Amino acid sequence: MFAEVGTWEEVVAAIKALAVRGAPAIGVTGAAALALWASCHSGDDAFDPAYGAAFHRMAAQVAGARPTAVNLAAMVHRAEGEFDRLAGTGAAAGGIAAGLFDFAKALEAEDEAVNRAIGANGAALLQPGSRVLTHCNAGSLATVFYGTALGVVYAAAGQGKVQRVYADETRPVGQGSRLTAWELSRAGVPVTLLCDDMAASAMARGLIDCVVVGADRIARNGDTANKIGTYGVAVLAAHHGIPFYVAAPFSTIDGACADGGAIAIEQRDPSEVLPAPIDGVDVMNPAFDVTPASLIGAIITERGVFAPRDLESQL
Amino acid sequence: MFAEVGTWEEVVAAIKALAVRGAPAIGVTGAAALALWASCHSGDDAFDPAYGAAFHRMAAQVAGARPTAVNLAAMVHRAEGEFDRLAGTGAAAGGIAAGLFDFAKALEAEDEAVNRAIGANGAALLQPGSRVLTHCNAGSLATVFYGTALGVVYAAAGQGKVQRVYADETRPVGQGSRLTAWELSRAGVPVTLLCDDMAASAMARGLIDCVVVGADRIARNGDTANKIGTYGVAVLAAHHGIPFYVAAPFSTIDGACADGGAIAIEQRDPSEVLPAPIDGVDVMNPAFDVTPASLIGAIITERGVFAPRDLESQL
Repeated sequence: MFAEVGTWEEVVAAIKALAVRGAPAIGVTGAAALALWASCHSGDDAFDPAYGAAFHRMAAQVAGARPTAVNLAAMVHRAEGEFDRLAGTGAAAGGIAAGLFDFAKALEAEDEAVNRAIGANGAALLQPGSRVLTHCNAGSLATVFYGTALGVVYAAAGQGKVQRVYADETRPVGQGSRLTAWELSRAGVPVTLLCDDMAASAMARGLIDCVVVGADRIARNGDTANKIGTYGVAVLAAHHGIPFYVAAPFSTIDGACADGGAIAIEQRDPSEVLPAPIDGVDVMNPAFDVTPASLIGAIITERGVFAPRDLESQL
Repeated sequence: MFAEVGTWEEVVAAIKALAVRGAPAIGVTGAAALALWASCHSGDDAFDPAYGAAFHRMAAQVAGARPTAVNLAAMVHRAEGEFDRLAGTGAAAGGIAAGLFDFAKALEAEDEAVNRAIGANGAALLQPGSRVLTHCNAGSLATVFYGTALGVVYAAAGQGKVQRVYADETRPVGQGSRLTAWELSRAGVPVTLLCDDMAASAMARGLIDCVVVGADRIARNGDTANKIGTYGVAVLAAHHGIPFYVAAPFSTIDGACADGGAIAIEQRDPSEVLPAPIDGVDVMNPAFDVTPASLIGAIITERGVFAPRDLESQL
């Protein structure tokens, strides 16, 4: 479960290879990569313009390691601001490195606090005895700790409201089977694993009371990019009259993004879907899809629970 | 791709283990198992009542190897009728065995002819340039030859109407990746493999013009049991205004079954979903689901194309 890295390039490679994944987790990791770069350049002259230029070039590469989640670019941007602030105070390169590490640690602490607030806000939406379907992993293994969608589950479970979680397998990477089911079983929350193509059947059989998922980027109008398959689950939930909730830090809302059509969708390697290529067989492998605001009952953030249409007024 | 069997028990085991799968294929294989039994008892006295009783006991076990597809029980029932007819003519046990083999061969030839008629009838529904989504495998590898859903694709492709087939992976067994994609690529039909949780995204992106799937059992009212995940695809197709077609032999319609609620759904081993059990993680693994008639645009059979509501009048 642990990957040790020594350079910022290794952090970028770990993010690309999904060794670190989950929008909040890669956001904090991205900020830490900037601190790592700075610590490797702590002997440099902070007043050399080349030093700052090299920092921002590196930061752009970290921010671009994965395109869809807003958190990575946002956290890297915040760490760049901290770099500029520290450089502006006349700090030496070693001091800037130390300051960036403190900043990354603060982001880490902030993420957990945000997740606990999301959990508390979301738990209020759940009825006692809830059977909750989730897709992908928006839990402790996607964040610094506690999680967003699973933060809601953990908070509600703490209030005795969760009867069972149904975890979609989430092909092709299997975040549901490899992460969510494992994480929930460790936390003592009853969990049933199902293949992605079984969710509709579970809903038709009356096994699901609500759906809670995370988000990688939320547009101003509430359209939400999340792990591939989320959109399909939202359509199925609407068909069965099951409430569909998105849980995410407020920072996931991209004020610069008017609607889902403006969100870049990362295409990943076909080998994730089909490890041994078959001659004449093409493969589709988008990592995310966009769920339109019209299918989302509520967006649960640390600042409160919002109908998608009310998001814009909060920005 | 070939499994050699020497006894009827080995045939039953092969059906249970999915070495033979696909409703029409297991139907013909079931009839062949009865002939195999008879050939192993060709030295017996056909006039001994114990001989006939043993035959029908064995036939019941073959018919029950898998519960959901109607074809297996139906074909075994037809072979039992042939046994009774042959026994009634005073044939010796060796003659009965030979007659049952002829009968199984005739069912085999009938299946291919039926599939070619389904293909021709279904191809008429497709527009030139069609991009067809299918789930599971209802092709040559599910039937004696040609297939039902893929029979429609092959016939339409022969008329130059098929631009591309999108093949759902079909977890947990992977009939889409292991069978459909392979079979279509061998036949020279352009094919794109996608994970089950990508179908909604493909539809939203305008990549799918129609859906064609097979069936394991169709109730009198048109409710259709097919591979798990089919129902979800039908809901998604309806949401996107995409026609959803079922292609199956007329014999798949179970006149004794009023609606989908009466169809037994086979539950398979959790290890298909999660090969290494995780302590505290339950697994759901229904092999089939039921798509209500209201989501089905047409049922394509060898006797013609029917709206689900018109099926009953054809019985």
